[in-house]
Amino acid sequence: MSAAGPTDRVVLAHGGGGELMNRLLREHVVPVLGNPTLAPLTDGAVLPRPEGELVFTTDSYVVTPLEFPGGTIGRLAVAGTVNDLAVMGATPLALSLGLILEEGLSLARFDRILADIAATAAEAGVPVVTGDTKVIERRQRSGVGKDDVADSLFINTAGVGVRRLDARLGVDRVQPADTVLFSGRIAEHGLTILSVRNGIEFDTELRTDAAPLNHLVAALLDSGADVKFLRDATRGGVAGVLTDVSEGRNVGVEIEEERLPVSRTARHAAEMLGLDPLVTANEGVIVAVVAGADAERALAALRGDPRGRNAAVVGRIVESDPPMVELLTQAGGRRVVQRPYGEELPRIC
Amino acid sequence: MSAAGPTDRVVLAHGGGGELMNRLLREHVVPVLGNPTLAPLTDGAVLPRPEGELVFTTDSYVVTPLEFPGGTIGRLAVAGTVNDLAVMGATPLALSLGLILEEGLSLARFDRILADIAATAAEAGVPVVTGDTKVIERRQRSGVGKDDVADSLFINTAGVGVRRLDARLGVDRVQPADTVLFSGRIAEHGLTILSVRNGIEFDTELRTDAAPLNHLVAALLDSGADVKFLRDATRGGVAGVLTDVSEGRNVGVEIEEERLPVSRTARHAAEMLGLDPLVTANEGVIVAVVAGADAERALAALRGDPRGRNAAVVGRIVESDPPMVELLTQAGGRRVVQRPYGEELPRIC
Repeated sequence: MSAAGPTDRVVLAHGGGGELMNRLLREHVVPVLGNPTLAPLTDGAVLPRPEGELVFTTDSYVVTPLEFPGGTIGRLAVAGTVNDLAVMGATPLALSLGLILEEGLSLARFDRILADIAATAAEAGVPVVTGDTKVIERRQRSGVGKDDVADSLFINTAGVGVRRLDARLGVDRVQPADTVLFSGRIAEHGLTILSVRNGIEFDTELRTDAAPLNHLVAALLDSGADVKFLRDATRGGVAGVLTDVSEGRNVGVEIEEERLPVSRTARHAAEMLGLDPLVTANEGVIVAVVAGADAERALAALRGDPRGRNAAVVGRIVESDPPMVELLTQAGGRRVVQRPYGEELPRIC
Repeated sequence: MSAAGPTDRVVLAHGGGGELMNRLLREHVVPVLGNPTLAPLTDGAVLPRPEGELVFTTDSYVVTPLEFPGGTIGRLAVAGTVNDLAVMGATPLALSLGLILEEGLSLARFDRILADIAATAAEAGVPVVTGDTKVIERRQRSGVGKDDVADSLFINTAGVGVRRLDARLGVDRVQPADTVLFSGRIAEHGLTILSVRNGIEFDTELRTDAAPLNHLVAALLDSGADVKFLRDATRGGVAGVLTDVSEGRNVGVEIEEERLPVSRTARHAAEMLGLDPLVTANEGVIVAVVAGADAERALAALRGDPRGRNAAVVGRIVESDPPMVELLTQAGGRRVVQRPYGEELPRIC
């Protein structure tokens, strides 16, 4: 029992399925995340019969550092899965939480991340109903994130939701003359992470945009606008989403540089770091394609939600052969926007 | 692009959300796991409205080594989540698959693990409908599993199922005179992993017992026996489950050493490795508590399934103050069975 006594750090035995794990769950996890469904700590959660088709999604989070301006890996994990459900036209019902803790993780940090998970779940109004905890042995890093040697964790969140009957979403519904909107300022998550890693500070603090957008999406769908396609622009940025639309539907996408919602700080950071905001990861931005006639209605619905106050109409769907995404520059030129190949930036989410 | 060219190993850019990740999914994942729901590779899967209450569960898998006699981490992941649903009295509907790959993982190994995932999902009859892939940087180990430096992955599987109306399961239904059964031979998974790690071989090969048990559980519930409690005895072994029952219901549990289903090879391995089979992890054994009058019917139902051919009645629920689990030894003595504290064996599942 020597290695498993009272400690302020996670030890391997915390993942062993025995008394010590039991205590970790009862003392650190359940009091923070607790709700009537989670409390029994059985192998799974029972939820009422959904009132429609079920939507099911999963995402793992490996971001480093674990804490950064505006949030933690926990906020990312909850927001990301809630948003994946929302952009499928689903009302999120419940989340699962799979934790992989590294031996040596400080329990104080673990508690902060759990508190952030609980706060973000409350903000979304979606409970964490079931979970699992494993512990892996301490490791030495050879690459990024050297600061967090033996103080790391990975999170998986899966989510279930019920599909809204009035949501008819799919890239196959996209057609020329449709309008393209972004729900908020782009690139802030990726730039925040990279700035922290590089120790760069700006006059105005960059913060992650990570946020649950289920209420924002509900407002958009409730507006009556004919919403055809939604996607949260995470890894690969808005460029990744728009190239998916272009290739998936064999159409062109034109976006206008002067309409892109990019903060001055983000623009400055992107220049310093040599990144293109279009391919930089977001955690709180949705790309929406709506019928051209409904552009204003959709924009008003997005801007009516606090998370959408910087929403903008950024472009349109056009005929194009071959299908491509083009940026109309402020200088009056055209530039082809490409899907990022890999990513210069590992462990951004 | 130099680091992201053709390669037989996973590189960081495989997790970047760009073209390279797209190719990994289309060339390695979808052809193996493919089904109509997974194919679109959208952010989530849509499933028909469940015909009852929903059961939702999650588990992460960090076992090392990744491949071992009888299976891989992929088989564990599918079987484990299917079994968690089954012991909740649910018919599994679908699984999600969250992959965290380590930079340097060989694609040949990745393909073998994916094939094992697909085979196990087919055996269970439960499709993988949604997934996510991340890549973490290469690391050096300081502890166990030195063989797999830069050749590792973690898996999370979440699962959804629909609760059977005829399943009334819960520790609160357990009472004195109920019968305790194990669905198969115990300790084989944990002993297999530890034997491989220690390079020990036996005359008769030890193999993991990892297997999806949803059909076995269905046979038990279909038998009409009054099944009161089910749990798969993974981390913490059967001792962990039985102490949960004892403490959860404030009753005693008596099990008889001579009735325990333990193979000769497992008994021998446990002695050599200094492990108690009662606290050693299983991945294909269910602990069942049924009404005493239904013991034979339950046993026949379990033995009628290939996965339950070694099932045994091992003991009974008794009055006990304080609540405790006791082993009646072959020598005629009594030994208190305790919940394991931590676990001597990290990364067993």
